[in-house]
Amino acid sequence: MDKDLILLGHGSGGKLSHRLLSDLIIPTLSAIPPAGQNDAAVVTHNSQRLAFTTDSYVVEPLFFPDGNIGSLAVNGTLNDLAMMGARPLCLSVGLIIEEGFSRRELAEILSSMREAADAAGVAIVTGDTKVVPRGKADRLFINTSGIGVFDHDLVIAGNGARPGDSVLVSGTIGDHGIAVLAKREGLDLESEIVSDCAALHGIVAEILKEGAAVHVLRDPTRGGVATTLKEIALQSQVGITLWEATLPFNGAVKGVCAILGLDPLYVANEGKLLGIVAPERAEAVLERMRAHPLGREAAIIGKVTGAPAGRVEMETVVGGRRAVDMLAGEQLPRIC
Amino acid sequence: MDKDLILLGHGSGGKLSHRLLSDLIIPTLSAIPPAGQNDAAVVTHNSQRLAFTTDSYVVEPLFFPDGNIGSLAVNGTLNDLAMMGARPLCLSVGLIIEEGFSRRELAEILSSMREAADAAGVAIVTGDTKVVPRGKADRLFINTSGIGVFDHDLVIAGNGARPGDSVLVSGTIGDHGIAVLAKREGLDLESEIVSDCAALHGIVAEILKEGAAVHVLRDPTRGGVATTLKEIALQSQVGITLWEATLPFNGAVKGVCAILGLDPLYVANEGKLLGIVAPERAEAVLERMRAHPLGREAAIIGKVTGAPAGRVEMETVVGGRRAVDMLAGEQLPRIC
Repeated sequence: MDKDLILLGHGSGGKLSHRLLSDLIIPTLSAIPPAGQNDAAVVTHNSQRLAFTTDSYVVEPLFFPDGNIGSLAVNGTLNDLAMMGARPLCLSVGLIIEEGFSRRELAEILSSMREAADAAGVAIVTGDTKVVPRGKADRLFINTSGIGVFDHDLVIAGNGARPGDSVLVSGTIGDHGIAVLAKREGLDLESEIVSDCAALHGIVAEILKEGAAVHVLRDPTRGGVATTLKEIALQSQVGITLWEATLPFNGAVKGVCAILGLDPLYVANEGKLLGIVAPERAEAVLERMRAHPLGREAAIIGKVTGAPAGRVEMETVVGGRRAVDMLAGEQLPRIC
Repeated sequence: MDKDLILLGHGSGGKLSHRLLSDLIIPTLSAIPPAGQNDAAVVTHNSQRLAFTTDSYVVEPLFFPDGNIGSLAVNGTLNDLAMMGARPLCLSVGLIIEEGFSRRELAEILSSMREAADAAGVAIVTGDTKVVPRGKADRLFINTSGIGVFDHDLVIAGNGARPGDSVLVSGTIGDHGIAVLAKREGLDLESEIVSDCAALHGIVAEILKEGAAVHVLRDPTRGGVATTLKEIALQSQVGITLWEATLPFNGAVKGVCAILGLDPLYVANEGKLLGIVAPERAEAVLERMRAHPLGREAAIIGKVTGAPAGRVEMETVVGGRRAVDMLAGEQLPRIC
């Protein structure tokens, strides 16, 4: 392995990504310590907080069950703002189009972006379009950036988990990644698996009614639930224990994962969130999640422990314990 | 020409780009009329104005004389904010990396980004990294988005030009595009042509000391001075007359353009601005530009006329007049 080259796994969201980010990209670009990294940055101007985030989308195929790169790009960036507890204010769109791309498909993707933005009540206010020669990009890449504002003084961040806290997930795990994979590989499934791609700021607004009891919110995209919880454990310097029996799965997703040897805990989600909340309000948060259309299958899936710091463990259904680490290498490339 | 396909010229910044934007992209994505489009959007929150902009960079080659894709990506987005009269507050960075790209080159590009941001006193606060398989992108694409704030109540926008106004440019025309072209094509020149890539918010702050006399600021990037002035003429519904004899050029740039049959008025600049200002303050603005290191060769190059609306003309050195239109097709692809 040539250490001087960028590998596919550097974009996985897992261990290689983290090393590239913490060894090279973050220290070079910014004064922010890697432990202070969240789904969006919070900047203060005239004593008002703003959330600011960016994401590029390179999903392949461009169209997948219940979504396409356009709806994904809008909802993904809205969600990064929502995970800070921010209300999305506006979005930008940067298109990189390969020469020869279909104008009809472009129109369909742009319509999906507008629909997703309208559904969220957010305006797309600025954009940029580049075209590169045939063979120099793969059809279409989209960047979306977003600004969010705060209607409260709560601080929701990855370093906020405390021993004793409850860990919740808002619904079934792994749907998006497996939907994209099944479409890409042309898997012949009995029941179609659809992406969970959705904007989460509405369910977040419900959760935030519990106020300061909400410590961490994070959407488990690249790297999945496992990698995201490992990040939180490291940022908060706590341990996390997951209870395997409580994890909600769509049966078809679990089936595909079993056949292909994939661990759904590492598969990307695009319409789910993890919440880490004070234990005395965990049931109340669960009720609020379940009352929202995007949270009907929400569950309490684990707890935060004091030690060992940075370690995530799973209590398995057969009563064992195993360590849950970050994704190593690349399980499913170009899922977002 | 298949009307259903995206062509390279759709990314030129010229006529095809405008049609794609005004026929498809802008009406689909946004409620903002194309005539209201500027280098950045201005959004208002809690009665405070914010400027917001995005740009993707696909320049080829990645390294060129006096710059690289990293410094270009930072300065280009800072300039889009500056052209609204905003002070840049923070930037995001989205990297799309081709598998196998050199980590050493990535490090060099990231260092240039940090240097350019530090020089401008602006923080890079959030980012995203994607890696696509070999052959699915051309080495490295960078998106930067930025937020700017306003220290004044002036409204600087493309629809602000008024008959009688003076047209100024802050320096020589066409340097960036020709520097990139010369490097890409391996032209053997007597004197190296270097990019003018630079952050313009400093010189803008000087110009804005003239207050409400400053009507329009625009950086003539893709499509060059000609296309940018045509856009302003259309947005403001005025005519613009350029005086050919007053246009400042680097001799080597003019020479390369003559040999290759390129019109420097259509070549991209990355460290120049066009200013349209009240005529009674034009000399004062010129003095302020010339007193700034980035404006030493500034010149008054034309005037705004009442009619015909949307028309740009040039009074040539031999005393004729010719129409100046938007760039048709693509003169120099992947210059930014």
